[in-house]
Amino acid sequence: MKNLKSYIETHKTRFLDELFALLKLPSVSADSSYKKDVISTANFVAESLKAAGCDTVEICETDGYPIVYGEKIMDTKLPTVLVYGHYDVQPADPLELWDSAPFEPIIKPTELHPEGAIFARGACDDKGQMYMHVKALEFMTSTSQLPCNVKFMIEGEEEVGSENLATFVKTHAEKLCNDVILISDTGMISKDTPSITTGLRGLSYVEVEVTGPNRDLHSGIYGGAVANPINILAKMIASLQDKDNRITIPGFYDNVEELSHDERAAMAKAPFSLENYKKTLDIDAVYGEKGYSTNERNSIRPTLDVNGIWGGYTGEGAKTVIASKAYAKISMRLVPNQNHEEITQLFKTHFETIAPDGVRVKVTPHHGGQGYVTPIDNIGYQAASKAYYDTFGKYPIPQRGGGSIPIVALFEDLLKSKTILMGFGLDSDAIHSPNEHFGVFNYLKGIETIPLFYKYFAELNQK
Amino acid sequence: MKNLKSYIETHKTRFLDELFALLKLPSVSADSSYKKDVISTANFVAESLKAAGCDTVEICETDGYPIVYGEKIMDTKLPTVLVYGHYDVQPADPLELWDSAPFEPIIKPTELHPEGAIFARGACDDKGQMYMHVKALEFMTSTSQLPCNVKFMIEGEEEVGSENLATFVKTHAEKLCNDVILISDTGMISKDTPSITTGLRGLSYVEVEVTGPNRDLHSGIYGGAVANPINILAKMIASLQDKDNRITIPGFYDNVEELSHDERAAMAKAPFSLENYKKTLDIDAVYGEKGYSTNERNSIRPTLDVNGIWGGYTGEGAKTVIASKAYAKISMRLVPNQNHEEITQLFKTHFETIAPDGVRVKVTPHHGGQGYVTPIDNIGYQAASKAYYDTFGKYPIPQRGGGSIPIVALFEDLLKSKTILMGFGLDSDAIHSPNEHFGVFNYLKGIETIPLFYKYFAELNQK
Repeated sequence: MKNLKSYIETHKTRFLDELFALLKLPSVSADSSYKKDVISTANFVAESLKAAGCDTVEICETDGYPIVYGEKIMDTKLPTVLVYGHYDVQPADPLELWDSAPFEPIIKPTELHPEGAIFARGACDDKGQMYMHVKALEFMTSTSQLPCNVKFMIEGEEEVGSENLATFVKTHAEKLCNDVILISDTGMISKDTPSITTGLRGLSYVEVEVTGPNRDLHSGIYGGAVANPINILAKMIASLQDKDNRITIPGFYDNVEELSHDERAAMAKAPFSLENYKKTLDIDAVYGEKGYSTNERNSIRPTLDVNGIWGGYTGEGAKTVIASKAYAKISMRLVPNQNHEEITQLFKTHFETIAPDGVRVKVTPHHGGQGYVTPIDNIGYQAASKAYYDTFGKYPIPQRGGGSIPIVALFEDLLKSKTILMGFGLDSDAIHSPNEHFGVFNYLKGIETIPLFYKYFAELNQK
Repeated sequence: MKNLKSYIETHKTRFLDELFALLKLPSVSADSSYKKDVISTANFVAESLKAAGCDTVEICETDGYPIVYGEKIMDTKLPTVLVYGHYDVQPADPLELWDSAPFEPIIKPTELHPEGAIFARGACDDKGQMYMHVKALEFMTSTSQLPCNVKFMIEGEEEVGSENLATFVKTHAEKLCNDVILISDTGMISKDTPSITTGLRGLSYVEVEVTGPNRDLHSGIYGGAVANPINILAKMIASLQDKDNRITIPGFYDNVEELSHDERAAMAKAPFSLENYKKTLDIDAVYGEKGYSTNERNSIRPTLDVNGIWGGYTGEGAKTVIASKAYAKISMRLVPNQNHEEITQLFKTHFETIAPDGVRVKVTPHHGGQGYVTPIDNIGYQAASKAYYDTFGKYPIPQRGGGSIPIVALFEDLLKSKTILMGFGLDSDAIHSPNEHFGVFNYLKGIETIPLFYKYFAELNQK
């Protein structure tokens, strides 16, 4: 890529000004009072894509907010990159905790970013990271160096569950056809250590209801003589994990991918301070499955967590009642090869089986999603790795994420292509929190790294 | 007692109307938003006592809700009966399970009460049963048949642990001096089988708080790597009972009174249908401590029940959160010889001991009380027995109750007199539950039986 650094140097003030204009639009998808602004933001993105060189740009209506689609087709024989991002943002509240107005972006130096960071809601998640791709395209088209085809799909409902995205992808599968999906909506290990998120966990989320007697009872009169649904629920939940904190549901681990010694050794190289982790959470010890490190427990291992529990009297003071019913919301994070529907069924069968006489149990599945993994011998991964090497001087560390981006598994399922998660954010960016920011360094480094991904991806496809 | 039946027949409509007026006052002591209503109820009770013939009535302020005191002294040489009751009620929630509004009393027939039952919060516990004593007094004074002195002590904090009663009794021991204490706040075996509760369980009620990380966390990013306070709380609760449903707190059973074979054989003679018990509660099996019958489990054996549990996300849908804190309200019913303060301390120490690293635990005692036993050769018991024989045509069965009236042990300790528990409620009355009710038959039978107690108690004291 010729003139990459000089182009960015020449245009960086404009790149920041344009991003500022985008950040000024309060595109809060969760709050309908911002509806007009969300729509304006979709229009802004569409105009940006045209200006950056897309031949075709469409604002595609959905049952919710529109999806902005853009493409630049060089030659149908060339490989195609599909860029996914989102133009909506999280709500900004609590407003009183912001040091500057969330929709009036400013650049301020921070300890980590002495050269300055952009403070605004969406600065990192995901306007800043999404706009890097628009500016990277501008560079490639204006210098006639775009080595393959590119498609953009930028949605406006990511922060509210991407409810209309699956339908859009299903009905436009041909239009969206691609060789690799590129997303910048994750982070990297540190400012000078790039990383690529190669795995995400799946999810099975259920709600359980335990019913004992047909009405609330006086604990003096019935206490000790009937099954108390709360005590029983506690026993049942407790029994779902053994003393080593392994999940006891029969068959739960059957398909769990076990990492090799080498893979675990590679993971262990990621910089991590257990002391700092405990200090930040104000805990005296970590807790989890025996035989695994904290970073393994929250990424490559499946989990079972109660997300909510309720039953009986929860008001002020004391009430001597035995509740008729007790409830819990329970979620399991799954790793690649665990099918979320199978796991939900295993949970249901097991939970019903362990219910003692004297209670009845109901298990209601809420939602789920598949885990995901990108193999590092994939062409997309290799291209990203080389691109990072060129700009950071070191190869990125492959990293498993503990969370779930359900759309990634969906894309693989519907579009049959792998996703490369090239994130330029940092843990300290405070996404979803007050004072969200994005380093100017990170923003410009993203714009510099992305064209190199295209270059290497096109080259590796020719081999 | 002359004209007893005819007096009741003549005035029964008014007796019901007056009780309705009392039941309409939502005197929920546990919820401070009802403060005004609780105070109004104290005033109502005071006025009722005056109208029924008390010479002196006082509303005695305490650090909480007032205690209503009333007395009618015939002759200081005559024996004195002290009536205890309470004018406060349990919270009415869950409101949606009531068939009629809890504070709008109505009379409806039921299968057991074809002649009608009074449906309202407090109908049985304890407004209805307390008011029987007021109306019994009215009969005796208006027909000039009160054969001894009577004192009333009606409190407004029974449902929240009678916190200020002990101080009141201690500081007014002389004023409260009596020969027997009479309480109607228990039940009888069946509508046609009277019984006298000769034993009550004690109570230790605590609230526990388990704190994990210092804030709610995303279950994808932290799930599996930190102690989840809800999972931990469930494990801790589950571990409080073993597979035989015996309580595992060290020292818990040390002072438990073990009944002899003969005593257990006598208990087993009380009419009881396990099939009917299960059917009424809509359960397929009973559940409790191994080696004991249902009637033993809920009377002579100590128990541990969770009365409420909460933590995390309990709203609609799913939220993938790991809560910072989880809570439970836990009560233990105690049997005679178990000291409630000792048991509370044993619980606290044990619960703190079993907390794993990674969480912090706080145990807050709510309230407690001692268990109690009344010997059946006591004059008070004999007087009650004769009174029941006159009105029911059969002698009452002495019965151990599963509930707790902690103040009974306190009374014996401070006032040196025995308590007679003449309850007219039934297990099916749904006290502390939605659709609490009290048979009109039971209410009127109580008003009829109580004056006969006074008659026989005065007679037996003369011998």
